[in-house]
Amino acid sequence: MKRAAIVGASGYTGRELLTLLARHPRLRAEVVMTARPDTAPEPPAFPHERPVDVLDLGRLATVDGVFLCTPHGAASEIARAALASGQKVVDLSADFRLRDPAVYAHAYGVAHPAPELLPEAVYGLTEHARDAVAGARLCANPGCYPTSILLPLLPLLAAGLVDAAAPIVADSKSGVSGAGKTSGPRTHFGNVHDNFLAYGIGTHRHLPEIQQQAGTDRIVFTPHLLPVFRGILTTLYLQPAAGVSAATMRGCLAERYAGEPFVRVYDRGLPELCAVQQSNRCDLAVAASGPLVVVVAALDNLQKGASGQALQNMNLMLGLPETDGLA
Amino acid sequence: MKRAAIVGASGYTGRELLTLLARHPRLRAEVVMTARPDTAPEPPAFPHERPVDVLDLGRLATVDGVFLCTPHGAASEIARAALASGQKVVDLSADFRLRDPAVYAHAYGVAHPAPELLPEAVYGLTEHARDAVAGARLCANPGCYPTSILLPLLPLLAAGLVDAAAPIVADSKSGVSGAGKTSGPRTHFGNVHDNFLAYGIGTHRHLPEIQQQAGTDRIVFTPHLLPVFRGILTTLYLQPAAGVSAATMRGCLAERYAGEPFVRVYDRGLPELCAVQQSNRCDLAVAASGPLVVVVAALDNLQKGASGQALQNMNLMLGLPETDGLA
Amino acid sequence: MKRAAIVGASGYTGRELLTLLARHPRLRAEVVMTARPDTAPEPPAFPHERPVDVLDLGRLATVDGVFLCTPHGAASEIARAALASGQKVVDLSADFRLRDPAVYAHAYGVAHPAPELLPEAVYGLTEHARDAVAGARLCANPGCYPTSILLPLLPLLAAGLVDAAAPIVADSKSGVSGAGKTSGPRTHFGNVHDNFLAYGIGTHRHLPEIQQQAGTDRIVFTPHLLPVFRGILTTLYLQPAAGVSAATMRGCLAERYAGEPFVRVYDRGLPELCAVQQSNRCDLAVAASGPLVVVVAALDNLQKGASGQALQNMNLMLGLPETDGLA
Amino acid sequence: MKRAAIVGASGYTGRELLTLLARHPRLRAEVVMTARPDTAPEPPAFPHERPVDVLDLGRLATVDGVFLCTPHGAASEIARAALASGQKVVDLSADFRLRDPAVYAHAYGVAHPAPELLPEAVYGLTEHARDAVAGARLCANPGCYPTSILLPLLPLLAAGLVDAAAPIVADSKSGVSGAGKTSGPRTHFGNVHDNFLAYGIGTHRHLPEIQQQAGTDRIVFTPHLLPVFRGILTTLYLQPAAGVSAATMRGCLAERYAGEPFVRVYDRGLPELCAVQQSNRCDLAVAASGPLVVVVAALDNLQKGASGQALQNMNLMLGLPETDGLA
Repeated sequence: MKRAAIVGASGYTGRELLTLLARHPRLRAEVVMTARPDTAPEPPAFPHERPVDVLDLGRLATVDGVFLCTPHGAASEIARAALASGQKVVDLSADFRLRDPAVYAHAYGVAHPAPELLPEAVYGLTEHARDAVAGARLCANPGCYPTSILLPLLPLLAAGLVDAAAPIVADSKSGVSGAGKTSGPRTHFGNVHDNFLAYGIGTHRHLPEIQQQAGTDRIVFTPHLLPVFRGILTTLYLQPAAGVSAATMRGCLAERYAGEPFVRVYDRGLPELCAVQQSNRCDLAVAASGPLVVVVAALDNLQKGASGQALQNMNLMLGLPETDGLA
Repeated sequence: MKRAAIVGASGYTGRELLTLLARHPRLRAEVVMTARPDTAPEPPAFPHERPVDVLDLGRLATVDGVFLCTPHGAASEIARAALASGQKVVDLSADFRLRDPAVYAHAYGVAHPAPELLPEAVYGLTEHARDAVAGARLCANPGCYPTSILLPLLPLLAAGLVDAAAPIVADSKSGVSGAGKTSGPRTHFGNVHDNFLAYGIGTHRHLPEIQQQAGTDRIVFTPHLLPVFRGILTTLYLQPAAGVSAATMRGCLAERYAGEPFVRVYDRGLPELCAVQQSNRCDLAVAASGPLVVVVAALDNLQKGASGQALQNMNLMLGLPETDGLA
Repeated sequence: MKRAAIVGASGYTGRELLTLLARHPRLRAEVVMTARPDTAPEPPAFPHERPVDVLDLGRLATVDGVFLCTPHGAASEIARAALASGQKVVDLSADFRLRDPAVYAHAYGVAHPAPELLPEAVYGLTEHARDAVAGARLCANPGCYPTSILLPLLPLLAAGLVDAAAPIVADSKSGVSGAGKTSGPRTHFGNVHDNFLAYGIGTHRHLPEIQQQAGTDRIVFTPHLLPVFRGILTTLYLQPAAGVSAATMRGCLAERYAGEPFVRVYDRGLPELCAVQQSNRCDLAVAASGPLVVVVAALDNLQKGASGQALQNMNLMLGLPETDGLA
Repeated sequence: MKRAAIVGASGYTGRELLTLLARHPRLRAEVVMTARPDTAPEPPAFPHERPVDVLDLGRLATVDGVFLCTPHGAASEIARAALASGQKVVDLSADFRLRDPAVYAHAYGVAHPAPELLPEAVYGLTEHARDAVAGARLCANPGCYPTSILLPLLPLLAAGLVDAAAPIVADSKSGVSGAGKTSGPRTHFGNVHDNFLAYGIGTHRHLPEIQQQAGTDRIVFTPHLLPVFRGILTTLYLQPAAGVSAATMRGCLAERYAGEPFVRVYDRGLPELCAVQQSNRCDLAVAASGPLVVVVAALDNLQKGASGQALQNMNLMLGLPETDGLA
């Protein structure tokens, strides 16, 4: 039985990891801490929940792997400490996703707190970095929106099936858990329930991450807020390269992801949030629509979009079966 | 006080009209009927609701205007009867929206039931057909999705601000009331609540209506189903013509709709469903996003997308103030 | 046209009053202010919303009536100022509901800020205090839960139809707007959506208000939080006095409220939230259930439970028709 | 690895069993059938779902245990066949819950279809019938509402802590999944979302089941419909026997359920639906409220209220660890 630490365990991604590890046959949550050194231990919201200890970096040395569920900025220092004492680290924050610290500084408004670690950080979109993740000490877990966009997009770009000059529209809709557990007007029930809205058009922090990984700045990304708790559905609009049909694109994705445990390409029908909630899967479907091809991708932002993929990566880094603890 | 008939009053659009007319200073719901000749009167769901009588075409002669809230196909015969006895007719179904009966037959799977009436039917996107509506006997009330797409799109196309060769992406999200009151798996709470999905990609019946009114087949339209009761939010992705900026587009829309009581162009911020629910307004905002310009449109599908716009049109047809009974 | 001031206009009850007054034929919102003297004017959330000015007590002298939508404690000082300059005041906070300042101090944890005004404050459960409200300078608008409990209970107690020794169970369920607009874990979408809970069992601040008005301490009151925005449904469990049937109780309520514009007693069926949302009505139904009689009451907590009843009371105090601006 | 059959697998309880068995270490879903002999196989709603075969009673002989997720009435014949060929049967319908076929006929409107099996059917409220269940061939799985009422009530009645003459009020609130997967006005999103209602006051079919198991007809039971998918919260109002406090009652429940894996009595705080959704637990809390004691019980109606408890019972009947496949 290997041992894991979860730092930042009181947020949504930390709590999801606790749930996943409770069913994991070979990895257990040994250390469960907040990300803030000065807080008192958090009593659990309900009797069955595990209390969250105060941050104690010394305890990280007792585990095999560390999950960082901390806000961006806070992850770097903890990662440095854990790596120094020999632990594998999966960082769910944005700290190690952008290769260029200048891009980070522009997107997040602060200088990068640990630029010396960036060269070795592996961007953990598992199906596209399996070997690199398995050999990494430090894994940058992808953002939720980027995962829903890159999984369908990367194979099509690599195969040259998308017009290299045309815009790539990614219209994404996310549940509220993506905004985190912090209270504020944006997450107040009265502003979300029975409502729907777009936000951050052209300015969302996940845009540079998507651009970096897709290798293009033609991405037009619009996030929206759904009145649901968990799940992202992205509708991608692609200009096919000359002579390429929707069926060709579907075939490309089906072939690329054949045998993948957590990516599924539909023969018929379209994915819905309910098909992927509480699972680590990303479901994909392709349809022709006038001059464009539409790809619909659905995933659970707390699983394949965050904690599920983080566990998938940690399994690889610790030499465990990749699907352990995941469904 | 003028008198109106509502045929098909037990559905969502009929019920909404009843609510609107209850506050109308110069038009009252005199006749309230189902669209099916063979049914018994419907007892109201709650004591304060008005009962709905069985269909009786003879009673239409006693009113000034007739609202048809019937399924497509059923509206034509009733329209014919009402026009013959001199009433003004606003049809909320799809029967008179498509000018070409062959397009209707293809989209709706049946021969058009009253092709002789098509030439005089006026497509009632009020802000773009005010004079024609005022002089019409028969008004085809626009579909909900088309209204949310055409209001932002038409002025930009007319001004030549959109690249005439590029696709026009309309990613629309609608509340469940758009699917009507009929029960089925699609509207079961268990399939909608906490869920989200795309449907009818490239095949939705509103697509030919949008293409006809926009005068282009470059429209790529994807409807989605939101877990809310009322409201549509459409995110439009437009390739600007050479040298055209988001600000130019915003200025175009602001100028076109200045003084319009029910269309509002934002200076800052973005419309949300909650800003337009229970009102007849369509709210618009424009933002740059990489190589494209994004326009967000929000309206209440039961008001500006159906019964509100129908009343706006009927007001014009009966010579009443256009905004009577609307907010 | 009479003029009103709304103090505390950025909260839910203030915003609801603004909506109601926008349709009022004889009373307009002349002054719209926050309750805090030191804040900057609040920009509206959406372009169509009215900005909220900073508090300026001097402006109250320019109106006929003042609505206080402030937190408890803050209302008293403003009420004192308004009364001194001759305005009618309806206070939607709890400051003037409890006749005994010691009970207030116990329930709200602070000494009563204006005990000298308590003797003249009229408890504005309109249907039970119509004449007193009409003659009052200061009206204490009832709490939302108490309104839903007292409207069905008072006539039955007055008629001696309820066993005077048995407990009276009021199991109430409220939408989130009752908790106000302030953000916190309790109103975070992630803690309300798809959830349901009881709270404040035996300790809710509305309990002494219900006890005072019902004249008994046999009330057992349990509030619950529903994942809806607006509406309260209370299920009352009553031990009938000897020989009293559910039909007798129903008849008592029907007779008591015959002719009341805003209280309706059902002949058949049961009220639901959707029957009263966006209206000022309280709907009631009575049913036998084993040894007890069950009364179900439904109202909109922002209308009959707050701003609607406040306007009903202000109409009376200003000599306007009681139903003006209400539906 | 033991083998199970699920008959009626396309409904909510059948689908939940499939999900639970997918994680079960010692029992797998070998046969998955509808309850209707004349239907075609159902294609799954999504690619990852298992298809549901047509009913074939012969296949039941190949398994160790049979779960009947059929409507009441349909279960009896299938149970008879399965018992005849030696399978253990857990029936999730109401067919074997009521000991007296006359009570069944009155509640369900049809003669009991298999009265000869009633004497051996064990009412499977597991914590109160563990040994009997383990030795049974046929287990009547309790209703969802009764489970939420009987778990808190039975120990208090048995200990004489409740006034034997006073009414027992059970105010229950359930998510929509309790109404099943069949479409109709009652489950239409437009009638549930943002709504709340009471139904079946004094007449619900679960009332005789509760009365039978509690051994009293003093139960006053009111079910309500919540706008959530899964979960039941029951608020019980009890008149304590002379000298009995809330603390005594809490102590009684805590002692009775100490060591139980799926019943938890709170020391502080109150259960909420979110604390039990997706688990087989029933969470209980006790609070004083004026002259009464209030007990709040929460469970997931699809798990402890149906499929979870059914699996708990089947585990016992097949000699497997009781908690296998449950959380």
